[in-house]
Amino acid sequence: MESDKDQRRSNVTLKQVAERAGVHASTVSRALNAATRSMVAEDVVARVEKAAAQMGYRRDPVAASLRTGRSKLVGVLVPDIVNPVFGPILSGVSELFASQGYSVIVADVGNDENRQLELVQGLIAHRVDGLILATVSRDDPLVDYCLSRKLPAVLVNRAEMRARLPAVISDDALGMQLAVDHLVELGHRTIGHLAGPSRHSTGYLRRRGFQLAILSHGIELQDAPCQDTLAYTREEGAAATHRLLDASPNLTAIASANDLLALGAYDALRERGLSCPADISIIGHNDMPMLDLVSPALTTVRISHKQMGRQAGQLLQAAIENNDSPPHNVVLPSQLVVRASTASPRA
Amino acid sequence: MESDKDQRRSNVTLKQVAERAGVHASTVSRALNAATRSMVAEDVVARVEKAAAQMGYRRDPVAASLRTGRSKLVGVLVPDIVNPVFGPILSGVSELFASQGYSVIVADVGNDENRQLELVQGLIAHRVDGLILATVSRDDPLVDYCLSRKLPAVLVNRAEMRARLPAVISDDALGMQLAVDHLVELGHRTIGHLAGPSRHSTGYLRRRGFQLAILSHGIELQDAPCQDTLAYTREEGAAATHRLLDASPNLTAIASANDLLALGAYDALRERGLSCPADISIIGHNDMPMLDLVSPALTTVRISHKQMGRQAGQLLQAAIENNDSPPHNVVLPSQLVVRASTASPRA
Repeated sequence: MESDKDQRRSNVTLKQVAERAGVHASTVSRALNAATRSMVAEDVVARVEKAAAQMGYRRDPVAASLRTGRSKLVGVLVPDIVNPVFGPILSGVSELFASQGYSVIVADVGNDENRQLELVQGLIAHRVDGLILATVSRDDPLVDYCLSRKLPAVLVNRAEMRARLPAVISDDALGMQLAVDHLVELGHRTIGHLAGPSRHSTGYLRRRGFQLAILSHGIELQDAPCQDTLAYTREEGAAATHRLLDASPNLTAIASANDLLALGAYDALRERGLSCPADISIIGHNDMPMLDLVSPALTTVRISHKQMGRQAGQLLQAAIENNDSPPHNVVLPSQLVVRASTASPRA
Repeated sequence: MESDKDQRRSNVTLKQVAERAGVHASTVSRALNAATRSMVAEDVVARVEKAAAQMGYRRDPVAASLRTGRSKLVGVLVPDIVNPVFGPILSGVSELFASQGYSVIVADVGNDENRQLELVQGLIAHRVDGLILATVSRDDPLVDYCLSRKLPAVLVNRAEMRARLPAVISDDALGMQLAVDHLVELGHRTIGHLAGPSRHSTGYLRRRGFQLAILSHGIELQDAPCQDTLAYTREEGAAATHRLLDASPNLTAIASANDLLALGAYDALRERGLSCPADISIIGHNDMPMLDLVSPALTTVRISHKQMGRQAGQLLQAAIENNDSPPHNVVLPSQLVVRASTASPRA
């Protein structure tokens, strides 16, 4: 078994490749590393690559890790890999890091948030150079953990309230303002909100953004009831919509903190024999894939999750390689996408 | 910088933990490894964990990797992390490996299939113990590469034709038989097929399954036209549907090799002013999330992608740890999910 494994490892050294290519060993090192290749002349890179290929030489990041203290591995913690918004975030992160010669370990927390610390310890044991956290709550012990270990980390999609680590997020308040502006313009005056979990910044800030937007139009908060949910799922959205309509039967529109919650509202309306948008207008948040095909096509607030992932990757790379990461947030703008689920209320 | 990094590493040795807990070093090793913990008595595990926690000891998989030749890292290659079927596959893979103390590196090939070999070399350089490939074509040089390096590997979703590596796939022929049976039962006699890329087993086998199912009902193949696509996307599905309807205007139903292709067919019908299912019935393949919400809700063939990921993980773990992986395929059954996109043809 061991001898089988050994066949996977090359015994050719950097120095041997350097001799063959007629360059210094450090030049070989730079030429074969995606992150430093641009420092070497193109024809030299070609010569080194040819020599390396002929001799069957491969860079050994484990040995390099012991030498430099860098593993060229980064970890990404996602709360639920099946949720359609995390695919584009991971895609952006992967694309950025692949172009920089890093590999990405993805840890899916799934339904068990208690496993987060255990998963992070596993990642640290693999000597990840840094972490991207798409999981954090507004006051998250994982952030303390990364800070105490001086492990570079960047938050994505969800921010911590104290901004102790850099974060790439969308403009939650702007998004809710766009949603409420649109509904008020259509003539709605009694508008409900399906709020996300308040332990996450997205749930908390969108709820607050909703209420500020309502007040900005001179509407009383008593005409803008909110219902909390425990998770961003269709089931939670449907249950909260039933509570919302039971408590406020004169509601004509619902602004959701999330698309899946909005799709749950569709389910609840159907169960009650109500129609969207004729009886109730509904608006989502995120613009996850395929919303143009649901019936009615969902009006929503668009966020570029792929760009979010890419930017989080850039911040993390800077934190790892330059050791400079002043805690600051990158806030991406959001934009309204009007489809068929919003209309003027019945006269 | 280096001294910062060093703070992340523990200097306590396995032997010191063993002394404190009053057990042999090999017992500490087994007790702290999720994969072997069950071999140690519960009270001993508790004693070892307590001693390790008090002393700040953590297992060091990089050192362990140099000692044992195992990294406890596995790599997963996906063709497109944004495609909704890969989230559930990755979720199944992650769940299985997290429970066994492995970490999962995800490499997203994205749109650039030429990068596959480079990504795999990167994974091997990180000493992955094995690979799960969700990317393979029917005759894939990556399979040769894994075999020549004796690197344990398992295929998922797509199989190679020569079955040189174990694969976990769905029953493509059964799926198409279920789809065609349903359409014939509704009264359709001229049925088109949107075929997936023929370089992938899913495209090739579903096309063949479609034709065998057509023949099993005594329908001539000339009444069952096929159109190839270059990728599993809505755009390709729409373009192929236009070609299908241009060539066979008397078509009353379309069986697709994939849900995204079927949703592309929706787009094409809309562009032509045709209605589904009144003019043309459409049936998909995969049952990716949210198809109950599109309009009309899509009839499709359901595959459990999460179970697929879990089983591929189990096969890979067996190949890594027992070094026994007779090449064989695990074929998961598929089932028909009837929704609103299929109906009897106009009389």
